[in-house]
Amino acid sequence: MVKKRIEGGVSAPDGFFSDGVSANLKSGGELDLGFIYSDTISNVGAIFTSNSFVASPLKHFQRNRISETDFILVNSKNANAMTGEKGVEDIETIFSQLPKFHNPIMSSTGVIGNFLPIEKIVSGAKRFDLSSQKSENFAKAIMTTDAYPKEIAIRVELPDGKSYSVGGVAKGAGMINPSMATMLAFITTDLEISTEKIVELLKENSKTTFNAISVDGDTSTNDSVFLLANGKKGFYDKSFEVVLHEVMKFLALEIVRDGEGAKKMVSFQIRGAKNDFEAEKIAKTLSDSLLVKTALFGEDPNWGRIAMSIGASGTEVSEEKLSISYEDVEVLKDGKNLFNSEVEKRAFEILKRESFTIFCDIGVGDGEFKSYGCDLGYEYVKINADYRT
Amino acid sequence: MVKKRIEGGVSAPDGFFSDGVSANLKSGGELDLGFIYSDTISNVGAIFTSNSFVASPLKHFQRNRISETDFILVNSKNANAMTGEKGVEDIETIFSQLPKFHNPIMSSTGVIGNFLPIEKIVSGAKRFDLSSQKSENFAKAIMTTDAYPKEIAIRVELPDGKSYSVGGVAKGAGMINPSMATMLAFITTDLEISTEKIVELLKENSKTTFNAISVDGDTSTNDSVFLLANGKKGFYDKSFEVVLHEVMKFLALEIVRDGEGAKKMVSFQIRGAKNDFEAEKIAKTLSDSLLVKTALFGEDPNWGRIAMSIGASGTEVSEEKLSISYEDVEVLKDGKNLFNSEVEKRAFEILKRESFTIFCDIGVGDGEFKSYGCDLGYEYVKINADYRT
Repeated sequence: MVKKRIEGGVSAPDGFFSDGVSANLKSGGELDLGFIYSDTISNVGAIFTSNSFVASPLKHFQRNRISETDFILVNSKNANAMTGEKGVEDIETIFSQLPKFHNPIMSSTGVIGNFLPIEKIVSGAKRFDLSSQKSENFAKAIMTTDAYPKEIAIRVELPDGKSYSVGGVAKGAGMINPSMATMLAFITTDLEISTEKIVELLKENSKTTFNAISVDGDTSTNDSVFLLANGKKGFYDKSFEVVLHEVMKFLALEIVRDGEGAKKMVSFQIRGAKNDFEAEKIAKTLSDSLLVKTALFGEDPNWGRIAMSIGASGTEVSEEKLSISYEDVEVLKDGKNLFNSEVEKRAFEILKRESFTIFCDIGVGDGEFKSYGCDLGYEYVKINADYRT
Repeated sequence: MVKKRIEGGVSAPDGFFSDGVSANLKSGGELDLGFIYSDTISNVGAIFTSNSFVASPLKHFQRNRISETDFILVNSKNANAMTGEKGVEDIETIFSQLPKFHNPIMSSTGVIGNFLPIEKIVSGAKRFDLSSQKSENFAKAIMTTDAYPKEIAIRVELPDGKSYSVGGVAKGAGMINPSMATMLAFITTDLEISTEKIVELLKENSKTTFNAISVDGDTSTNDSVFLLANGKKGFYDKSFEVVLHEVMKFLALEIVRDGEGAKKMVSFQIRGAKNDFEAEKIAKTLSDSLLVKTALFGEDPNWGRIAMSIGASGTEVSEEKLSISYEDVEVLKDGKNLFNSEVEKRAFEILKRESFTIFCDIGVGDGEFKSYGCDLGYEYVKINADYRT
């Protein structure tokens, strides 16, 4: 099989269209309302936040038991969360004033606790051009504190001459936490996949992608990952599983890279934990630790904070067996501090990079997990202290 | 009974002495080595960190099963943690070079992973004047990123003419987390109390004091609370339980108030949770949430983040029953947003205060808990990005 990156994001697969407009939700005419449209009815499945206060768009999707659709409407700036029954009714009101779609879906991101500005959204959506394939406008319309849009498209050519495409787009930045997904992500393909299989694939792949990343350890009320398969190609190929993983991992890492104010993308590769579950717990404790994150921001190879964090994770550990490396620079080996001026200097060089891996060998079993995190600096504070105003 | 605040900190109770010197562990001649000495053998009990990597001084205390002592030696700048067997041996080496004490105890705070500078510590400790009662010097010597020393002393006069005193000192600032205690705290009294009772009282009172505070959600390897009772007064009085709680709460709140870079002390008072355990979980999720902490720093009455955090706490909640107030300003009542320009203005006024309470009524049961947290701003990042250098 030949796999190549192509342009077109979520509208790259056959029969998908998307675009974004300004509906005056954000100030200054920025894009803030977008759509994904499929010209044939598409199977759809989704995985949602683990937050108990599920936002209204998620309730709307769940109550209507949507498994097929041809239209997803997405707004930024207002999360339509903590808005009670009216929040769900507002979605129905909006769709009742738009051209008729098949089980239309809404998705929202932004501030919690305010009702949707129905008029603005309806009037914006009436300006959609359903034949448009400007996926980057869609990617921009769903951004909140994101610094840049995040999209990908892959075209696969099979040995028998058949081909298919997969497109993906995400928004992230804050309220990113490993306990479930993240933010909003939409993935499209022209393969034929049942809704049941869609949900199964999303769950399986989110464990090592969206669920392995952390920006700030908070879990949003709106986290959603949608996968639409419109079946235009009339077949399914098992290679999709590899491609889907690639798309989900790409989008997840883009979210970390664009973590609010983040300058560094750091992988925490845990080995030798008691089991995979404990390895995951350690990896996520590290990517969530404020003291680890600020040390990364300060480019300080302070392995003591990494050890502290591992010790605080509530897993089986042994001081005499713990080893820590920054890339290939070993700083702690079986509990022995290897720091000297030469090692410290080499570690400093690694810390200066934009992206690197910290390896931790716990030494008590064969559990493994890899999580992805970022540093936390002044920008994070600035973004989150000012966000609502 | 008459209770009054007095001077003298940990050396206020009869027979206790304390002071601090500079042993050149910190730069610029700052105090960095201190002692508490009792001129009679004192019962002692302690509670320690829940971090699996227990620092060497804690191992030393535990292995020697110390229940009586007359001397505690404390250094800052070096935590003697992740230092293996040598870390414990170093403590023995230090004590072997000092005048002979009865089960001397060591306690350390600072950077993880380095061996203690034995010579400096021994030569510093040789300059101690055991008849000195300069508790504030001790309070300063144990500081790391603390902005100011934290001490208290209370004298109690009983109706029958007897009296006793309780003194306390603590250091905190970073790596403060609700999952167990915190930092270092030392409490002294001239009452007669068994070691068993000491440990029982510490455990009981830490739940609503040291264990209810959070600065950054990280758990140090060195957290310790010591209580020394030298029995000089020859009696015990039940009023001690109230006074001990007051001392522990005072020190715990001082630690939050002096949280690294913190400008605000915020209490999270949870009511109506399913049970007390769930109330505690909610209260601690709130005081740990980065998005809540940065909103406090930005003086933004963004109750959506509070709701998000409650929803993420993994407890039983109901969107229709949740109520949130900033002091007496209700912003969410039974899931209804009460925000209007007047309410928002009043909420802003509360947020500007240095200290206030956020009330959350979960509405599903009668569980209660109160936690104490602080805001997180640029200073926190600065302190922790620069700490080791």
